[in-house]
Amino acid sequence: MTNNEIKYLRSLSKKKYRYEHKKFLIEGKRIVDQLIRSDYQIDKIIITQNFINKHPKHILFSSNLDYQIIADKDYKKIKNTDNSQEIFALVPIKHSFNIPDDIKGPLLILNNISDPGNLGTLLRSAAWYGINNIFLSTGSVDIYNPKVVRSSMGAHFYLSNLFELDTDNIITILNSKKIEVIAATLDGTPYKNISTSNNWALILGNEAHGIDNDILQLSTKQVSIPQKGNMESLNVAVAGSILIDRFIAK
Amino acid sequence: MTNNEIKYLRSLSKKKYRYEHKKFLIEGKRIVDQLIRSDYQIDKIIITQNFINKHPKHILFSSNLDYQIIADKDYKKIKNTDNSQEIFALVPIKHSFNIPDDIKGPLLILNNISDPGNLGTLLRSAAWYGINNIFLSTGSVDIYNPKVVRSSMGAHFYLSNLFELDTDNIITILNSKKIEVIAATLDGTPYKNISTSNNWALILGNEAHGIDNDILQLSTKQVSIPQKGNMESLNVAVAGSILIDRFIAK
Repeated sequence: MTNNEIKYLRSLSKKKYRYEHKKFLIEGKRIVDQLIRSDYQIDKIIITQNFINKHPKHILFSSNLDYQIIADKDYKKIKNTDNSQEIFALVPIKHSFNIPDDIKGPLLILNNISDPGNLGTLLRSAAWYGINNIFLSTGSVDIYNPKVVRSSMGAHFYLSNLFELDTDNIITILNSKKIEVIAATLDGTPYKNISTSNNWALILGNEAHGIDNDILQLSTKQVSIPQKGNMESLNVAVAGSILIDRFIAK
Repeated sequence: MTNNEIKYLRSLSKKKYRYEHKKFLIEGKRIVDQLIRSDYQIDKIIITQNFINKHPKHILFSSNLDYQIIADKDYKKIKNTDNSQEIFALVPIKHSFNIPDDIKGPLLILNNISDPGNLGTLLRSAAWYGINNIFLSTGSVDIYNPKVVRSSMGAHFYLSNLFELDTDNIITILNSKKIEVIAATLDGTPYKNISTSNNWALILGNEAHGIDNDILQLSTKQVSIPQKGNMESLNVAVAGSILIDRFIAK
């Protein structure tokens, strides 16, 4: 691998270069497995000889995909985490800025989620429950941040309607659609007393500051998860996933 | 603050010294808030002058608790994270090795959870739902690891029956109690088809390897969360919390 190629792959750990090149790099066996099983475009798969020795029956080798074998010293320069397991894939950033005219619920609105692990976990839960439409407000952590990608476990490859939008855009779109907008708040109506069609949007807010006021005003209902113990709150990825479970698997 | 005091507080980021001194250090405003509101023993609260200026009405100042003001340069030496917000508390490790004779469900059995964020989030969910009994297998990440404590958001102060046990002990205890043991697996019975009394124990396994065979054999039922999309799995803290929600808030 040339120094320029290494430099290019390393640059993708920075948001600026990811968007300049419209690419992101994924790392680790389970997430590359998910990628190969999906229909997502793959630009390049990169492994070490040691990966082949360790995993001779990996799904990669029974696929028709090409791969590049790199030296150990190059692997060490590229990896972003100790858990890269000597396998990477280079894939395009595909999220679009054109909202489909017929967009409808279920829709997840993520308002300034700041922790990468929380955002990745929410994308993973959305993909598990078959929720395809996600609006992410521009104050949130970047969808292609390596830590987000890692904790999403490949959800990116299934979420075809993943949009990063500013607050004004979110408001304009939701005002023009007949989607029931429900905000998750600590003092909302218990989920058992809320009934919805499948045409809903669920708003989840920032870990420390909750939902922005102008986004909150879009909601016609507020929902909460009944507290049984003494904790002040649940983790936002947990709370969001519990509400999705309650709304989807009624 | 003396150099020895600083050295002592810094040493608590290592498991060996936490158990030697039977203390752990917590950092951040929200978690210290939870601590002050709980009945948990507090050895010392440490803040900076800047914290007082920023938060003059903090719950600490309306409590009767003593606090120590330290210099900025000392604060920077003690903090483990950029999010310490200039407030710390030193508290005792209180988890016991004596299981109460009358222990019963709901009980959470965490079998080799390796990610600190996942363990902390699960403790937070358990405390939210009022689950007081937790068995953690000895292969899991340490309960008092600073990242676990941070993501638990103060759950430690409410979970009075938090036990770290080896597999043999977990097996002996569960075999001697009439607790219904349910294992969370990917191919278990959908949660809607499982009915339980409140005297249950839920087993959650390692992020990559699932539940150990000898622990799994304790279960009389296996439970799963129905998959609607294409993802292979949910995050373990999310899956555990969804199942707790389904079992507790029937």
